Amino acid sequence: MSISKLENKLAIGVDIGGTNIRVVIVNNKGKIINSLKVPTLAQQGKEATIKRIIETIHQIIIQSKISPDELSGIGIGAPGPLNGKTGIISFAPNLPGWKNVPLRKILEDEFRIKVILENDANAAAWGERSFGVARGINNLACFTLGTGIGGGIIIDGRIYHGADYGAGEFGHMTVNKDGPRCNCGKYGCLEAYSSATGIKNRLKDRIREGVQSRFLNLDKVRSVESISLRSIFEAAYQGDELVRNIVEEAIAYLGIAIANIANILNPQMVVLLGGISNEGERLLIPLREEIKKRTLDTHYRFLKVVLGELGDQAGVMGVAALTLNYL
Amino acid sequence: MSISKLENKLAIGVDIGGTNIRVVIVNNKGKIINSLKVPTLAQQGKEATIKRIIETIHQIIIQSKISPDELSGIGIGAPGPLNGKTGIISFAPNLPGWKNVPLRKILEDEFRIKVILENDANAAAWGERSFGVARGINNLACFTLGTGIGGGIIIDGRIYHGADYGAGEFGHMTVNKDGPRCNCGKYGCLEAYSSATGIKNRLKDRIREGVQSRFLNLDKVRSVESISLRSIFEAAYQGDELVRNIVEEAIAYLGIAIANIANILNPQMVVLLGGISNEGERLLIPLREEIKKRTLDTHYRFLKVVLGELGDQAGVMGVAALTLNYL
Repeated sequence: MSISKLENKLAIGVDIGGTNIRVVIVNNKGKIINSLKVPTLAQQGKEATIKRIIETIHQIIIQSKISPDELSGIGIGAPGPLNGKTGIISFAPNLPGWKNVPLRKILEDEFRIKVILENDANAAAWGERSFGVARGINNLACFTLGTGIGGGIIIDGRIYHGADYGAGEFGHMTVNKDGPRCNCGKYGCLEAYSSATGIKNRLKDRIREGVQSRFLNLDKVRSVESISLRSIFEAAYQGDELVRNIVEEAIAYLGIAIANIANILNPQMVVLLGGISNEGERLLIPLREEIKKRTLDTHYRFLKVVLGELGDQAGVMGVAALTLNYL
Repeated sequence: MSISKLENKLAIGVDIGGTNIRVVIVNNKGKIINSLKVPTLAQQGKEATIKRIIETIHQIIIQSKISPDELSGIGIGAPGPLNGKTGIISFAPNLPGWKNVPLRKILEDEFRIKVILENDANAAAWGERSFGVARGINNLACFTLGTGIGGGIIIDGRIYHGADYGAGEFGHMTVNKDGPRCNCGKYGCLEAYSSATGIKNRLKDRIREGVQSRFLNLDKVRSVESISLRSIFEAAYQGDELVRNIVEEAIAYLGIAIANIANILNPQMVVLLGGISNEGERLLIPLREEIKKRTLDTHYRFLKVVLGELGDQAGVMGVAALTLNYL
């Protein structure tokens, strides 16, 4: 196979979310050639979901009129914990019934092609490094801010998995010894303050305390679920007493967590994706102030804190990129 | 040169402290063949200290009756920030006047032998991995608990320096957003709670508040300086109201910091050296409880938290080991 042939390869990226399965075809320049999204229907069980994954991959190959030898491989991004070496998903918090699923082998048997399995936050970090804001950066950390908070670490140009495939649990750093309960069952985690869930839970706490909102229709705890992060930030910037402290706290604790990463790992760049990172400069300005307050000067001067460029495509592009690089 | 010849090499390790310069000769089994200690006399200036370092190395070579070709090299451990690649000490907090000192070149010119410069906490981690409790462990973090708190990270069997030689500043993790001022000028750092200085500063705070000690002669703020960490812990275990909370807080925040490292880096082992680690099991039992409370279960089950075996020789043995490995 000639080098130019290799350079023209395409890769399939698959993101297995709790709600949707997303499948894309990416070329080696990071251009998405085709993309499909189908509901995961996780409640129909593991076998049904795996069948839908396989069918959707077949479908995108047929739709895109590509022959198998144009493909470098299939990359799968899934929420951890999973073991990239064995290709087994130990379990998936948002996919009931998934326990020790040898997904890599299942897909390799079906498609007779290289399959790579990667944690979704690591995949997002790799996506930004391959095709996004972190091109050419060899040492970086990526925060995926969503319902939960994940993390991906790249050291010397490679994903760092830790000694037992567990590295990068940024969301479960303790940022406040006496903080509120997190989804993980522990207390005072970053995720309990700065994830979408954390922010909404803090809002509910305050509504229970009887605090009133000036701008939002938040008379009941139940009404918090339907409100968007965007509206919450908007109200905070307009000076709404109820939400302002919560938003400030979310930013302060995220700043502390990033500063801790900077002091510990001394990366060149921290990339933010999802959730409150969609607030852009309104987030970045106070966030950088907090990080500066908390990071050794030598480390802060060296550090870039930036928003990702790939949005919610970062993960799926990252796993696709992994198969292109690992040929 | 035959392999057996290489295997019989000796290495010189030098530790440049604010008070003493320590020089040892170590064989490749980690046995200290000879050791010298001279006062640093930092106040006499940079040139004088460098001269003393050179003289002491000459002296130990002569005393030990070894010929230059038996030596693999000279390893220098110094407090950061320093750049192991260029061999330059940027500055040294406990050595006034040291700014951009090309110590590696100075010693290479003098001794015509390989010289390696390493941050003292990284050196301690490497010492424990080469000759101490962490032999055979490829992913570990080491906390050096002393006047300050340093950290060394080993990833995939190599010291991790970070992108700008600044990795491992465990002492400056923020553990309490609203915590007291640290020596670094920032607030709520681990070092402000769990270092010897931190514990003593917290004691002073409480004495200023008028709290009385039952067991310690601590009527004045000034009297805190002369008291040992051992006496402070002893009084805490006997139920002294003044110190108990401070010791508990020191342990709790150290536990949080270790848990954060575990969640972020997922190492096999965390090694503790110096300061409160000399309390042994009395420290480890409550500390492990705190770490368990703060670490994801998967990560905690995988993690060993242990005391170092080399004590205050860890650093000097680590730099010696570096020259033996890098032949």
